[in-house]
Amino acid sequence: MTTTPAPARWAYRTTAVTPERLEEVDAWWRAANYLSIGQIYLLDNPLLRDPLTAEHIKPRLLGHWGTTPGLNFLYAHLNRAITDRDLNTLYVTGPGHGGPGMVANAYLDGTYTELYPRIDRTEEGLKALFRQFSFPGGIPSHASPDTPGSINEGGELGYSLVHAYGAAFDNPDLLVACVIGDGEAETGPLATAWHGNKFLNPAADGVVLPILHLNGYKIANPTVLSRIPEDELVALLRGYGHEPFVVTVGFDGEDPRESHARFAGVLDEVLDRIADIKTAAAAGTLEGRPAWPAIVLRSPKGWTCPPVIDGLPVEGTWRSHQVPLAEVRDTPEHLQLLQDWLASYRPDELFDADGAPFPATVAAAPAGARRMSANPVANGGQLTVPLRLGDFRDHAHPVDPEARGTGTAEATRMLGEWLADVIRHNPNNFRIFGPDETASNRLAPPVFEATGKQWNATVLPVDEHLAPTGRVMEVLSEHQCQGWLEGYVLTGRHGLFNCYEAFTHIVDSMFNQHAKWLEAARDVAWRDPIPSFNYLLSSHVWRQDHNGFSHQDPGFIDLALNKSPDIVRVYLPFDANTLLSTYDHCLRSTGYINVVVAGKQPAPQWLTMDEAIEHCTRGLGILPWAGTETEGAEPDVVLAAAGDVPTLEVLAAAALLREHIPDLSVRVVNVVDLTRLQSEDQHPHGLPDREFDAIFTPDKPVIFAYHGYPWLIHRLTYKRAGHQNLHVHGFVEKGTTTTPFDMVMLNDLDRYRLAIDVLDHVPGLAATHAQLRQELVDARLRARAHTREHGTDIPAVADWRWPHPDTDPNRPSTAKEIR
Amino acid sequence: MTTTPAPARWAYRTTAVTPERLEEVDAWWRAANYLSIGQIYLLDNPLLRDPLTAEHIKPRLLGHWGTTPGLNFLYAHLNRAITDRDLNTLYVTGPGHGGPGMVANAYLDGTYTELYPRIDRTEEGLKALFRQFSFPGGIPSHASPDTPGSINEGGELGYSLVHAYGAAFDNPDLLVACVIGDGEAETGPLATAWHGNKFLNPAADGVVLPILHLNGYKIANPTVLSRIPEDELVALLRGYGHEPFVVTVGFDGEDPRESHARFAGVLDEVLDRIADIKTAAAAGTLEGRPAWPAIVLRSPKGWTCPPVIDGLPVEGTWRSHQVPLAEVRDTPEHLQLLQDWLASYRPDELFDADGAPFPATVAAAPAGARRMSANPVANGGQLTVPLRLGDFRDHAHPVDPEARGTGTAEATRMLGEWLADVIRHNPNNFRIFGPDETASNRLAPPVFEATGKQWNATVLPVDEHLAPTGRVMEVLSEHQCQGWLEGYVLTGRHGLFNCYEAFTHIVDSMFNQHAKWLEAARDVAWRDPIPSFNYLLSSHVWRQDHNGFSHQDPGFIDLALNKSPDIVRVYLPFDANTLLSTYDHCLRSTGYINVVVAGKQPAPQWLTMDEAIEHCTRGLGILPWAGTETEGAEPDVVLAAAGDVPTLEVLAAAALLREHIPDLSVRVVNVVDLTRLQSEDQHPHGLPDREFDAIFTPDKPVIFAYHGYPWLIHRLTYKRAGHQNLHVHGFVEKGTTTTPFDMVMLNDLDRYRLAIDVLDHVPGLAATHAQLRQELVDARLRARAHTREHGTDIPAVADWRWPHPDTDPNRPSTAKEIR
Ligand SMILES: Cc1ncc(C[n+]2csc(CCOP(=O)(O)OP(=O)(O)O)c2C)c(N)n1
Ligand SMILES: Cc1ncc(C[n+]2csc(CCOP(=O)(O)OP(=O)(O)O)c2C)c(N)n1
Ligand SMILES: [Mg+2]
Ligand SMILES: [Mg+2]
Repeated sequence: MTTTPAPARWAYRTTAVTPERLEEVDAWWRAANYLSIGQIYLLDNPLLRDPLTAEHIKPRLLGHWGTTPGLNFLYAHLNRAITDRDLNTLYVTGPGHGGPGMVANAYLDGTYTELYPRIDRTEEGLKALFRQFSFPGGIPSHASPDTPGSINEGGELGYSLVHAYGAAFDNPDLLVACVIGDGEAETGPLATAWHGNKFLNPAADGVVLPILHLNGYKIANPTVLSRIPEDELVALLRGYGHEPFVVTVGFDGEDPRESHARFAGVLDEVLDRIADIKTAAAAGTLEGRPAWPAIVLRSPKGWTCPPVIDGLPVEGTWRSHQVPLAEVRDTPEHLQLLQDWLASYRPDELFDADGAPFPATVAAAPAGARRMSANPVANGGQLTVPLRLGDFRDHAHPVDPEARGTGTAEATRMLGEWLADVIRHNPNNFRIFGPDETASNRLAPPVFEATGKQWNATVLPVDEHLAPTGRVMEVLSEHQCQGWLEGYVLTGRHGLFNCYEAFTHIVDSMFNQHAKWLEAARDVAWRDPIPSFNYLLSSHVWRQDHNGFSHQDPGFIDLALNKSPDIVRVYLPFDANTLLSTYDHCLRSTGYINVVVAGKQPAPQWLTMDEAIEHCTRGLGILPWAGTETEGAEPDVVLAAAGDVPTLEVLAAAALLREHIPDLSVRVVNVVDLTRLQSEDQHPHGLPDREFDAIFTPDKPVIFAYHGYPWLIHRLTYKRAGHQNLHVHGFVEKGTTTTPFDMVMLNDLDRYRLAIDVLDHVPGLAATHAQLRQELVDARLRARAHTREHGTDIPAVADWRWPHPDTDPNRPSTAKEIR
Repeated sequence: MTTTPAPARWAYRTTAVTPERLEEVDAWWRAANYLSIGQIYLLDNPLLRDPLTAEHIKPRLLGHWGTTPGLNFLYAHLNRAITDRDLNTLYVTGPGHGGPGMVANAYLDGTYTELYPRIDRTEEGLKALFRQFSFPGGIPSHASPDTPGSINEGGELGYSLVHAYGAAFDNPDLLVACVIGDGEAETGPLATAWHGNKFLNPAADGVVLPILHLNGYKIANPTVLSRIPEDELVALLRGYGHEPFVVTVGFDGEDPRESHARFAGVLDEVLDRIADIKTAAAAGTLEGRPAWPAIVLRSPKGWTCPPVIDGLPVEGTWRSHQVPLAEVRDTPEHLQLLQDWLASYRPDELFDADGAPFPATVAAAPAGARRMSANPVANGGQLTVPLRLGDFRDHAHPVDPEARGTGTAEATRMLGEWLADVIRHNPNNFRIFGPDETASNRLAPPVFEATGKQWNATVLPVDEHLAPTGRVMEVLSEHQCQGWLEGYVLTGRHGLFNCYEAFTHIVDSMFNQHAKWLEAARDVAWRDPIPSFNYLLSSHVWRQDHNGFSHQDPGFIDLALNKSPDIVRVYLPFDANTLLSTYDHCLRSTGYINVVVAGKQPAPQWLTMDEAIEHCTRGLGILPWAGTETEGAEPDVVLAAAGDVPTLEVLAAAALLREHIPDLSVRVVNVVDLTRLQSEDQHPHGLPDREFDAIFTPDKPVIFAYHGYPWLIHRLTYKRAGHQNLHVHGFVEKGTTTTPFDMVMLNDLDRYRLAIDVLDHVPGLAATHAQLRQELVDARLRARAHTREHGTDIPAVADWRWPHPDTDPNRPSTAKEIR
């Protein structure tokens, strides 16, 4: 349960901050700025060997300058500190739109050329470096997966700090320097991410150093945090539990040497403070939760760009956000300004005749993996250790094929038993995240027998399961859970996020961004696949007992399936054994996002573990014991289901039909892996048309009971031959606080309605079984009336058990209920 | 541009807090608690006239007790203060799971019976009140739309404070008392919502009084804010710009009279402080941004419930969150505990023989609309004043049918011109919200000629368009924008939220909750329809010039269409005039969520204003000038488009085909209102099948170029006869930073690909025009290669203009490009 703290590598300063060292820092900074601007503007003439002409300028000027000098400044200073103290540092940049800066820094420290040999340290290499940026067929404008050292593209703002914490967990030797845009700081996810420090364990986890980049502006506005009095800002950071260090640099024509000296002094103080805390934590002498330092860097947005352009102030204002000189190609004034601007960094002092940086230009760089752009933590696949997974079969729920569905179990609780084992066997690289719902989703109690909930705020005697280190992370913020796990898997570790199904929508956009990251990373040769991001969505739409309509939303699956089929997997296991088999598969996989929806309520169990494994491996299949078809003949109708509650209703409908129309040939199909429904050319899991037709028939009616919005099934199957025979029942946005069976009735997913649909769609049945149809309609009305009167479901439904006609045709059936 | 401040109604205290008045407060509190517990547990015996038996207990015990006593306590105290000062108060409860409390309070002050006469002030009425709660056919468990006085159901936590600010804007006389759960406070949206005070204008807007309900726990964990030292908490609130007042009540067996006295004292101090600020603001003597007071109420979770149950502490712990006594029906011990618990409120002193509350029980209640549950602000439709809308035709972009597509315009900028007028004519009840993108989305400059961006933090000389009051609200938080506008429309005002298309996913779940609110509100007879929530999604997937893959996501439409068709409308106007006509319609509508996607880049303009109005009124239509069909004959193929970029590509493809296969009969269709594609039984806008078949033909190939994910079109049309002939092109999740035409090529949405698709699907064409097909393939390759070399699109595409073959068949065509 407790992770052994790694040996402290948190050294104190070994060298003094001499003017010479600050010269190195300044050289780096100038070079990085120069290379950033080159990327934004230049197609050619990368070293200004010739006077700049329109032909040297890119036809489309794209990118973001404003944030870049600050990011470069911090990179240069961190370089010095890293060399000084041999720090293991990950650099996370919230304003990832400063992509040119991140590329420039990686180029200067050599990583870029190692990974992209074409971009070498020659004038040609520089030209290629400049040209590729934001250019068709080149690299994107943000700190995206192809940017060395990045785990946070920063396109959608708000996730830097939460990613930083995710990376720091279980990395006791890691310093995560996290630059937060002052605009970014206005977002909700960032505003709550500060509280990560209540969870971080000072001994067993790494250090997060938040650096609020107070450059005063966002795209077109000042930022809130730059326009409150400094005492308010300082109070805010103290309120967040930090010891704030405010540094102001670069205003009123300050000599950069002074800026460097001031900032280096503060950084050293901050790193000493961190070393104090880490040393005390390692020695076990730390009292209480430390006030980790945080830096506020007040600097002019666009620092070092032309102060005034076309008569308007640019440096130090929002106008520097994107491309300060927009008409370089068209106006000689702008061209000249650009020439002067570039020249102001004195490129001839920075690069030699061949175009390579002089040794003095890059003297600040640390070596090897200490380079922030080469830190393997940012290429998590390299560090990934597969989980040691105990045999999930040992946790099987015993199912007797002769008595299926008689015992009940809570699927997520069964999963919890196995996860407790996973935790025991993987004490350092597996975590469970959840917004205060791990118990509510019933993974607990089992998991809390193996671990605690990590919590480094105050603990009281009344508390249960809280611990300074623990594998479960609970905070009432889906954004935090999602972002922490993202940071954790991006740095090569494993985990799952358990969440109420409906509220997973809170992180829709984070899911999108992570999926896009994974998709783009597939094309980056040097990135190794990272562990999959695993969702466990429970407390799902059909069983919201304490809650109502606001908690009923199965649409996350729809969202997920919009993303690349190379990334997204969706599973709907329908009992404990299928859930176990599914999750074992998920925890072994890499590079995916696995969305698993599972029930937590006591429910009948259907498959033996061997059957479950076969079924999950196929992803879907016929349940031979449930149908009435005879081998050798096509069935009259297919009853299909995906999801636990729909499967229950389909089975109950099948039992009803068997009793009342014994000679009707019914096939019962269950789908666990939703993407098998798609065509082969749409998803790698897609079933070949021939197999699809074999299972669903090309021309018989298919009554499909689906867990979520019914149209999703149409969307997935529209290319299939039998598509027009598909009649899908699902959640049609009817809900409230009511009984489980009332919920399925409200949405026409109940057994009676499914049976009626069979009568209506199998040719001839409606007329020949009009009486049965009427009885089914009446049965629904009675079931509804019962709920209104008693507040519970009718016993015929609540106590319904699979009648086992397959093994005992004379067995008394509860399907009598409709008479 | 400035709203005249309303006369200050912010009176000071008129009566003293006598022990008698506090007795009234206590009586109310006890009664509300009693009624809350009754709702959770009792089916019968509402006044405990008989000893409690199992039959009196509900079979399913659902609901949340833990938060309720705190909510009731605050309600009781606010009642006193309202009466005292004649305050106009809206009560927003973040933990909306305290629904039974809100219902109890509304019952006590009489509103409930006025709105639901069946729930009268008799024993029978009480019985009905209890029974209906969380009961099938009854009311849901949260502060949902059927709860009088609620604008925030609080099912999904996090939005109380942002709703409070939305309600306060332009309501200078309103006090919004906003209870924030300490768990809720951990969410991202809540964590950033505190900064609303930098925007609120003290004179022209109302007052938001945040009350952090520090009951220490959430579902199964302590809360972060309750487990940091008090000085940190106080610093946090000061950092958020508030003057915090911390009050602790109810611990260690404190006599409630002491709790009441202490809290009443603080509330009076706080309200006096507010009166000071408002008075100064009205007088124009307020200096700078005031530090508005905020209350922290530390109280035991589940306060007044049994302290210990089954040997475990319950009151003051997370165990009181839902239903503290779970086995009342089954164990005599629990039944007895419940009996004692209920009796502890002394119901016989609270209710008379008939079951009506004694006058003393409800003496604290204010009268009429001063009752928080009867405040018309919470029933915004009652207060809605339709917008005064200038004629949008006056802002038409001139389109000459003889020269369509020759001039270019930026659609959103044209809209901005008209919106500037809307602002001028509606200075108090219309606002535009955006996450720092109003300029980037090009509504500015025009709107800033009519108004400023409201900003009450520090202003510097360099700033532009900031103002103490203004109709534009910009903060870098999509959550804040969404939540503010929700609060604004829920209280009867109008507005729009302009957002980057991709990042609208950040508020997916808030959209879901608002849609669910609107849907549920439709069934509440006393709620009048409120103004629609209007989105303007620009900077869309096809034109992400400075940005890349992370900014390319058209999936918000898919999400939106999962919600009730009674609520959701989706429009894709394809030029400035169709955008104007669409938006005029949206701003006139009530009760909907209108999702409008529109371009901001210079683009050709297609329809005259008269045509645009007709086209938008139909929602879709044939563009007769674009096709080659002859009246009286079926076309060979239909080229359909939805969205500005797809329409451009379809028109270019049509032009190509016309030139190269002049005798091919092509129909060109454009869809503005996406839901018209759905069947009549699926959406009120759904086109009857006959009309659909007439436009799209039942059997000809339809090549459909769609703005978003292509499968959405399949999902919408799967019931249509011609569905299997539909071939949809759209965004297939391929993107990066590149040129506009490279983007459409990457996703097979380009003109050449569309033309190829025509050749492939019109029987016979592929074989007879194999050469043309090959030329089209080559044209794509050349276009791609051009971007890689020059960084721009080929001139044949970049400079392409509609060739006007309809009016001048000899006119030189640029379609020659493919030769
Ligand atoms: C969630 C989100 N909303 C909107 C944007 C559009 N956007 C891009 S950059 C930017 C301003 C960023 O300001 P800041 O964080 O201060 O960064 P910097 O000033 O360093 O550029 C905005 C609003 C975005 N990228 N992400
Ligand atoms: C966004 C969101 N995530 C999770 C939940 C599930 N949930 C319901 S109540 C609750 C705890 C709320 O705690 P708090 O805000 O402190 O309210 P109180 O203690 O007053 O009940 C949680 C996590 C939710 N309703 N919304
Ligand atoms: Mg900034
Ligand atoms: Mg709480």
